[in-house]
Amino acid sequence: MARKPRRTSAVEKKLVGVADVVITAAQRYRDPTLAIPVRSLSNVTFNERKGLLEMGKRRQARSFFNVGMAKKFMQTVLVADALCELQRADLTTSLREIYYRTKHTIKNSHENTLDTQDESDPLIEDLEVTLETLREELHVRAENAGSVVGPLVLVDDGDRVDCARLGKGGYSVPSIVEPEYLQIKKCTADFVLLVEKGTQWNRLSEDKFWRKYNCILLTGNGQPPRGVRRLARRLHEEKRLPVYVLVDNDPWGYYIYSVIKQGSINLAFESQRMAIPKAKFIGLSSGDPESYGLPRNVGIKLNDKDIARARELLSYTWFQKKSWQEEIKRMLSSGLKYELDALANKDFQYLTKKYLPRKLKEKDWLD
Amino acid sequence: MARKPRRTSAVEKKLVGVADVVITAAQRYRDPTLAIPVRSLSNVTFNERKGLLEMGKRRQARSFFNVGMAKKFMQTVLVADALCELQRADLTTSLREIYYRTKHTIKNSHENTLDTQDESDPLIEDLEVTLETLREELHVRAENAGSVVGPLVLVDDGDRVDCARLGKGGYSVPSIVEPEYLQIKKCTADFVLLVEKGTQWNRLSEDKFWRKYNCILLTGNGQPPRGVRRLARRLHEEKRLPVYVLVDNDPWGYYIYSVIKQGSINLAFESQRMAIPKAKFIGLSSGDPESYGLPRNVGIKLNDKDIARARELLSYTWFQKKSWQEEIKRMLSSGLKYELDALANKDFQYLTKKYLPRKLKEKDWLD
Repeated sequence: MARKPRRTSAVEKKLVGVADVVITAAQRYRDPTLAIPVRSLSNVTFNERKGLLEMGKRRQARSFFNVGMAKKFMQTVLVADALCELQRADLTTSLREIYYRTKHTIKNSHENTLDTQDESDPLIEDLEVTLETLREELHVRAENAGSVVGPLVLVDDGDRVDCARLGKGGYSVPSIVEPEYLQIKKCTADFVLLVEKGTQWNRLSEDKFWRKYNCILLTGNGQPPRGVRRLARRLHEEKRLPVYVLVDNDPWGYYIYSVIKQGSINLAFESQRMAIPKAKFIGLSSGDPESYGLPRNVGIKLNDKDIARARELLSYTWFQKKSWQEEIKRMLSSGLKYELDALANKDFQYLTKKYLPRKLKEKDWLD
Repeated sequence: MARKPRRTSAVEKKLVGVADVVITAAQRYRDPTLAIPVRSLSNVTFNERKGLLEMGKRRQARSFFNVGMAKKFMQTVLVADALCELQRADLTTSLREIYYRTKHTIKNSHENTLDTQDESDPLIEDLEVTLETLREELHVRAENAGSVVGPLVLVDDGDRVDCARLGKGGYSVPSIVEPEYLQIKKCTADFVLLVEKGTQWNRLSEDKFWRKYNCILLTGNGQPPRGVRRLARRLHEEKRLPVYVLVDNDPWGYYIYSVIKQGSINLAFESQRMAIPKAKFIGLSSGDPESYGLPRNVGIKLNDKDIARARELLSYTWFQKKSWQEEIKRMLSSGLKYELDALANKDFQYLTKKYLPRKLKEKDWLD
């Protein structure tokens, strides 16, 4: 509420541009057409130098005077209109509410503008890539599903939030952490520890690990949602903090790490503002059970899906480094995966008191 | 960390009592036996006067000198030992970590103490009911998956957390909110609004609804986890705040409300410290689409599962009130369910500016 007086935002101008396409075409008796970048694997490349996934230049025309495209064109303009409303009112909303907002029965017909959310979600992605704006800049939020504690002071809606003084619970990371909504006021940490699961984050928060190791503890309670990734990226970029990723030792953990590091194939165009190419994988590594003396009986047998997924990862460009090939192959040859929770087999505080201190001391991480 | 110096807690004494059973029996050459309350529907009753589910008095003996029970007896003692370790070290942990902590291969054998978490989870529940302690008092946490904002000051680990000064994001509700861990320092709100989904909570938080209506906004991002329910209950009990529950209009929404109100069948013994028998259902009601002019096309057709579930709810003792029978039957006869998100069809801020203000003004809720 305590935001600056409204002026037309760059994003609003871009959205109005969608309507301009229609108006300009109409004035010139032309077919209104949008050129939408193709969002498929075939139009995604891995930029080795930058270390992130990028979208190629292929575009597809979406025209109004085309029986196969007319409805989709209309829907695209409708969604752009709803997104424009958000900008003007300075509000955020969810994908689902965009769907509801744009759903109407067309006058003198039984036809709905949209029938299901499956129709509006991809249009929002189309607009993201076409207008080169992050979903967050379009004011579309996802769930808030993250927590942060550590020596970090944020400003949220004019409130000064000191993440070192929020007990064990911490600050609930919002879905949208763009500078417009959330400012990083002060940060004296040495690094960010991005923890996959809430249970280990709780362990570390309870043990005040962040105080002893001067770090920011961040979790998304599972695969990190966009807000958590964006916050890690901002801390990395604006405060030059290294980011260490702590995940289970299974193909899913490797995948989570890789999405944090170079982005996801589905949303490749976002990588330039979401990915953290220098993020390090601190564990759990397939070498850790031996190094840290974890018994085999706390390992879990890899199932067929795990094996197939691990083999797939082996073939990805960004896992071609020798160290990564070894890491994944060692998991495959052991036939076992290990959860971070298994460290509790040694001691409830093993993660805080032994595992991470040794990892950090030995700089034992993968790049 | 800033907690009082440790003395033997009441819970620790109870856990030690489990070992005492074994020792006393051994000294007397008897069969060590635990009497464990039966956790099944047949041992659950609805207390009409108190308005909550209660566990009956039936108990089952678990003995050591019994081929069918010996392993389970051993496992129960093992889990009690791990829980005792938590008390002594003043730590909290997860169900999964308890499993890992107690898993060992028995000396000179290939037999594991436990093979899967399915074996340890029910033992923790057994100990909860046998020792009459909440899981939280046993220091076993679940996910933290909730957020709170509003005129509420908490103390978490010695930190003063003012939930009116945490921006839109709010305080991340921990899994364990027992007075030992979290103190309610100050609360000047008039009521608690417990919102099912994060998206509506975000809407209300962004619009500072809590400021205008002097309330506490609480969500668990879906079915409220134990920490969120316990916090609502504590605010209700200690600060005498009414609790209003806002859920989708579907059988699942009714069910969520009923669990908040009188507890769940599975964990009936916890109702006395989790349930809020006076909680009110503020919406979405099956009468709302008409009262608030929601078009039929934003309703979702009830599927077979919804219909079966709604009919089941109709038969529950606690839904026998005339108003509830009407509520559920109206949904069935309309053939439609409505999500809270559908209110966005009218206007992105309809929930904040029209729907809830009118609901509160007209005191339009169900009991």
